[in-house]
Amino acid sequence: MISILIVGKGNVGTQLYEAFKSIETLNVQLISSRDLNAIPKSDVTIIAVSDDAVATVSSQISTDFVVHTSGSVPLSGLKNNTRKGVFYPLQTFSKDKKVDYTQVPFCIEATTESDVKLLETLAGFLSKKIYHISSEQRKAIHVAAVFANNFTNHLYKIAHDICDTHQIPFEILHPLINETADKIKVLPPALAQTGPAIRKDAATIKNHLFLLTEKQQEIYTILTKSIQNDA
Amino acid sequence: MISILIVGKGNVGTQLYEAFKSIETLNVQLISSRDLNAIPKSDVTIIAVSDDAVATVSSQISTDFVVHTSGSVPLSGLKNNTRKGVFYPLQTFSKDKKVDYTQVPFCIEATTESDVKLLETLAGFLSKKIYHISSEQRKAIHVAAVFANNFTNHLYKIAHDICDTHQIPFEILHPLINETADKIKVLPPALAQTGPAIRKDAATIKNHLFLLTEKQQEIYTILTKSIQNDA
Repeated sequence: MISILIVGKGNVGTQLYEAFKSIETLNVQLISSRDLNAIPKSDVTIIAVSDDAVATVSSQISTDFVVHTSGSVPLSGLKNNTRKGVFYPLQTFSKDKKVDYTQVPFCIEATTESDVKLLETLAGFLSKKIYHISSEQRKAIHVAAVFANNFTNHLYKIAHDICDTHQIPFEILHPLINETADKIKVLPPALAQTGPAIRKDAATIKNHLFLLTEKQQEIYTILTKSIQNDA
Repeated sequence: MISILIVGKGNVGTQLYEAFKSIETLNVQLISSRDLNAIPKSDVTIIAVSDDAVATVSSQISTDFVVHTSGSVPLSGLKNNTRKGVFYPLQTFSKDKKVDYTQVPFCIEATTESDVKLLETLAGFLSKKIYHISSEQRKAIHVAAVFANNFTNHLYKIAHDICDTHQIPFEILHPLINETADKIKVLPPALAQTGPAIRKDAATIKNHLFLLTEKQQEIYTILTKSIQNDA
């Protein structure tokens, strides 16, 4: 039996708790990060709090092995005086949409071989995608994820705005969005690039700019230039 | 029996031909756009050529009903002297990846009720997603698709570059990319936005910029600003 204490009742903490709860060989408890007075013992304490709070919360915890779940905080960002590690599920979490953990890559890091093994075991209950990732690499993954997730979502938002302006149902773009995301599993994105930018189709680019707001034009222009510079 | 002539052996023409070929009540022929001397009669002639070539190719065709497959060319871009229409499959086509037509929205337009019906019938053999879209709306869809597909793919490409620089397998981002694309089917993108930009997390943004090339920084900065302006 492995005992897990999760600290932090946000999206990540809550969803990890739900996922671990159903596994018989685990004993999992979830507490709020405001509730650090009487912390129960555990084999591993997972603090799932905002990046800014990792240092403060970890400094108040004295259990044997403390890990955080953040993509952008290095291992050294933990301020407990005991053993440290990272247990970073590389996925986007929302309160309104349950995550399928079997598809979530876990990026793990720890300073001793046995701690790495323990984190591998925990991740292995949920997913088959387990990666040993250093703090330096995790930082880079986090930036790459901002492009592949946060910025991509913002492009979807702009597409949604354009549809709204012209009374077009946004759902008409769903299959295209899916195909674009699927395609890069079989073709590297550099080879999957299509559209007026890569074709250097100046007439279409000019027509497109004419339909856009000033802010949309700015983004259209910089991304078009970037595609053409890469080609 | 409906007879279809497809002109143009590029990705769209070839894939439409393959899809129609297997349907018993259709008689479909495929010819090259360089081969316009002896054009067979047909109920509908679908010219699947590059946007620039639509006018020239259509001007050489005298069959009764000519449609193009382009997102960015208006109905009036056809220069045949007979009936005109548009049969635009809103999807990204590559030689190397077969498209599942059942998931492709067809945007159709024609000037007579019976031509609209004919195009509905044809699209209906392949897909259930059929939309009546005017030339003006189609222009807007095409721009929206550039954001949702071409520009999104370019962000994937930047994420791939960042992974390469730090010896991280790009596949680690596949589940995140999929989840990002799936999420907007249940949450509008404006509500699905996460990340340091929307959180106004200046420290993380600064750390991210430090890891990027100058060109990547430029894109990071403009998209971060745009997310914050929308919030």
